[in-house]
Amino acid sequence: MSTPVLILVNKPAVGIDVPVSTQPEFERRDPGEPQLSVLDLGTTRGDGVFETVMVSEGRAPALAAHLDRFRASALLLDLPEPDREVWGRAVEAAIAAAEAEAEVETDTAGLGVLAVKLVLTRGIEGSGRPTGWVLAQLARDFTAVRREGVRVVTLDRGYRHDVGRTSPWLLQGAKTLSYAINTAALREAARRGADEVVFTSSDGFVLEAPTASVLLREGNRFSTPSAEVGILPGTTQRRAFEFLRSRGHDADAVRLRASDLHRADAVWLVSAVRQAVPVTELDGRALEVDHALTTDLNAYLSARQAS
Amino acid sequence: MSTPVLILVNKPAVGIDVPVSTQPEFERRDPGEPQLSVLDLGTTRGDGVFETVMVSEGRAPALAAHLDRFRASALLLDLPEPDREVWGRAVEAAIAAAEAEAEVETDTAGLGVLAVKLVLTRGIEGSGRPTGWVLAQLARDFTAVRREGVRVVTLDRGYRHDVGRTSPWLLQGAKTLSYAINTAALREAARRGADEVVFTSSDGFVLEAPTASVLLREGNRFSTPSAEVGILPGTTQRRAFEFLRSRGHDADAVRLRASDLHRADAVWLVSAVRQAVPVTELDGRALEVDHALTTDLNAYLSARQAS
Repeated sequence: MSTPVLILVNKPAVGIDVPVSTQPEFERRDPGEPQLSVLDLGTTRGDGVFETVMVSEGRAPALAAHLDRFRASALLLDLPEPDREVWGRAVEAAIAAAEAEAEVETDTAGLGVLAVKLVLTRGIEGSGRPTGWVLAQLARDFTAVRREGVRVVTLDRGYRHDVGRTSPWLLQGAKTLSYAINTAALREAARRGADEVVFTSSDGFVLEAPTASVLLREGNRFSTPSAEVGILPGTTQRRAFEFLRSRGHDADAVRLRASDLHRADAVWLVSAVRQAVPVTELDGRALEVDHALTTDLNAYLSARQAS
Repeated sequence: MSTPVLILVNKPAVGIDVPVSTQPEFERRDPGEPQLSVLDLGTTRGDGVFETVMVSEGRAPALAAHLDRFRASALLLDLPEPDREVWGRAVEAAIAAAEAEAEVETDTAGLGVLAVKLVLTRGIEGSGRPTGWVLAQLARDFTAVRREGVRVVTLDRGYRHDVGRTSPWLLQGAKTLSYAINTAALREAARRGADEVVFTSSDGFVLEAPTASVLLREGNRFSTPSAEVGILPGTTQRRAFEFLRSRGHDADAVRLRASDLHRADAVWLVSAVRQAVPVTELDGRALEVDHALTTDLNAYLSARQAS
């Protein structure tokens, strides 16, 4: 598949009917054509939520966890609740269409890894009707970055660790379309000669990367920041913990100070599509990379069975 | 004009050529049709900037100040520099089209106040080409709200007052499309029985409203928070100061503590289209409203001459 598969979701939320009774609950569109209004609040206000799901060999092993988080993000933004059944069917349809295209193009049944994005916006201003779509694209090949790792700088996210509780209007812990700060932080990392960012809270706790969870190893003990510090609960981090525990390691979500990060024996960034990427350098300090463990972890993460 | 006027800007930035040599630098489109790709970073990442310009009797008295701020926001996001001449011409074209439509519809030369929005996004991912458009709409009639005022609650924005200097990747002081927190704060205000929000810094300084500057009066002295606390420099606040000084009042941009706000004799929210709106209640405390001054200030703000 050389072009993405786009599916517009006409019935994206519970209690929302499709605009016309003859319309399907979702339908395929040409992603090369414009599909969105300049009046959509997803664009004019970054007012919407999303998920990116990894599909390997036609299966989305963490789809249920992504749909859970999609719903949680929507509720944090007071958006209508996504219609889980419709989104599940739309994702399946996008995968099937991508597979069909791959077969036509390559004459084989094989298909690379897909990144499938789900987006729900508040819709066109004044319409009261949310906008939803699913976009399936061939994922970039992250094989080299998983082997070679990334250089990371820590950057202050500016918030205390507890703002999710004290100030829910700051939407910490929701995966929103208002991502400009995340991309600005990655540009700042590049200016500092690094590839990636780990955010810290203004009071010194480890948070997350712009699009990944942080995983630490100290000796035989693995940890990740707990979601109570105002970060996204990591769907891939959860599966990484399953793998680590199956190997007999301790793996826990805890409060981590920046000093814990700087003392760690090894650090990974984990996310749905790029999977587990070792950190080779943290704020200028070289870090040890366990290539064997990273390889096994990534094999587990891309396995087709549901977690 | 019952429908908005939309102009797509094909040459939105310096150094960007129009895609095809036969294409104009901007062109009118039907805002009822989809115009944006689901791959545009303005939508998928809230990665873009905007301005909303007030047009009264066919003139945009603060256009130059808005174009200055549009440029400043773009540079804070490392976007290419907006082509000032092109945007100026596109705004003029949008106003002319709106006036022509109004004449056809009403058979009079009169036209209400327009809200003209300028948007520049990082464009379709991987294209290296920003997306730009101008949208001119009839402004809502804010006459009643200017007379009756708004009830305000203060909410913590979560950042220290100095993050603009220490952490520029947080994009404070840029008017970005990542506005989900602003709309979430307004929903929180509604839950608290109020209409509007004034954000404060985590260390207790007065910042701004989600889409307006804050103006205070203590006795004969007027003030607004200085832009160094990581807020947008207010184009309308600046014109309000011109008016106040012409009346012989002191008017200064200073650091204001939340306690200054709570001690103020009068408070206004000022913005381009809604103009100056008196605050009738602040965190539950009733505030005096100077209707005569508010009326005169708003007459000045909607005057057609450039400031």
